[in-house]
Amino acid sequence: MDRHIDHHFDEALAALKQQILLMSSKVESMVEDCFRALAARSDLLARQVTERDHAVDALEVSIDEQCIELLARYQPAARDLRFITRGLKIVTDLERVGDLACNVASRVLDLIAEEHAPLDLLPMAEIVQRMLKESIDAFIEGDAAKAEAVLKQDDIVDQLTTKHVHYLIELAVREPQGIRRIFPASSIVRHLERMADHSTNIAELAIFMVKGRDVRHKRGI
Amino acid sequence: MDRHIDHHFDEALAALKQQILLMSSKVESMVEDCFRALAARSDLLARQVTERDHAVDALEVSIDEQCIELLARYQPAARDLRFITRGLKIVTDLERVGDLACNVASRVLDLIAEEHAPLDLLPMAEIVQRMLKESIDAFIEGDAAKAEAVLKQDDIVDQLTTKHVHYLIELAVREPQGIRRIFPASSIVRHLERMADHSTNIAELAIFMVKGRDVRHKRGI
Repeated sequence: MDRHIDHHFDEALAALKQQILLMSSKVESMVEDCFRALAARSDLLARQVTERDHAVDALEVSIDEQCIELLARYQPAARDLRFITRGLKIVTDLERVGDLACNVASRVLDLIAEEHAPLDLLPMAEIVQRMLKESIDAFIEGDAAKAEAVLKQDDIVDQLTTKHVHYLIELAVREPQGIRRIFPASSIVRHLERMADHSTNIAELAIFMVKGRDVRHKRGI
Repeated sequence: MDRHIDHHFDEALAALKQQILLMSSKVESMVEDCFRALAARSDLLARQVTERDHAVDALEVSIDEQCIELLARYQPAARDLRFITRGLKIVTDLERVGDLACNVASRVLDLIAEEHAPLDLLPMAEIVQRMLKESIDAFIEGDAAKAEAVLKQDDIVDQLTTKHVHYLIELAVREPQGIRRIFPASSIVRHLERMADHSTNIAELAIFMVKGRDVRHKRGI
């Protein structure tokens, strides 16, 4: 690329990063507000989460277009090519986390309708929120060490998921009359687990981008 | 592109399509075998599903590399560029369906341990398997009409999911002693719903590739 095109490309790439950060911050605040709604027993706050999903969906489409435009116009190579092709995948993960936040919001409405939740979900939610934020930071900053730290937290989330699901099954056997609050709590645990999986994907894509090697499906081997 | 490069590109693109078809057929047979295992009450068959996930994971990584190689070497434009960038996303969907098949296989093991399943899951599983196959065919053949047909089936799956989950909650209230077979059945319903969502994604990506317009997040508006 000559210097003139180079300059335009750098600007377009910076704009792409800004859009990914914007999308990420919207998704993070949706997840945060699900659990603020649960803590405050606020129907309104839970319903507002669902309304914000449209903006996230629109960002997915526009970031996709930006990526394809960058590939078509500048034919980037090496690390830039890896950043853009990973960007195409990461927005899919972010969009799904937004969908999961909507699912959690619906289950929070179920839980608010009951007298109390069968389980304190906030500690698990906090870990998942931190993983999401740090995986995106790792990708944007190209920080492999930060991405590796996210991968470690996924094991904790998996352990918490198993522990919580077992607890809820035992509780359902012991207190069958509580099934209408046990089911939504169990769904929320599963949704949080999936959010953590998406953050793990993003972290793995960040490592691929930085190191040029694929760590997906390699852990524990 | 001159004719010589053009020829190499066509060959590489055909090879890419073959690999995507191979990955898809592996994933489809994993899903199929989960329900064959359930029908035959075969622990062995269910366990074999999980063992086949490695091959699917390896294909995801190698197809990703093929896509990036094609972008770097040939700088494709227009429809070819759209095919390759959609291919990058589709293998992620396929890999997740493979993971979901492993999750279903585990829950099938739970169900086999019980005397009988609380619900006939096969009709829903058949719809989901058909959606998966048809969405991939639509993408590979560039057949927008076939992709549209997949989108319609997703509504049926959503209705079945709601119906089955409500039935299982009512059953849990009525027969709390059956909770250990109700929980795995409920998980399988949710996993099937997610498989259908992935097929829907693939169908939407196929439509984008053919028509050059994005139908994601546009349905029902």
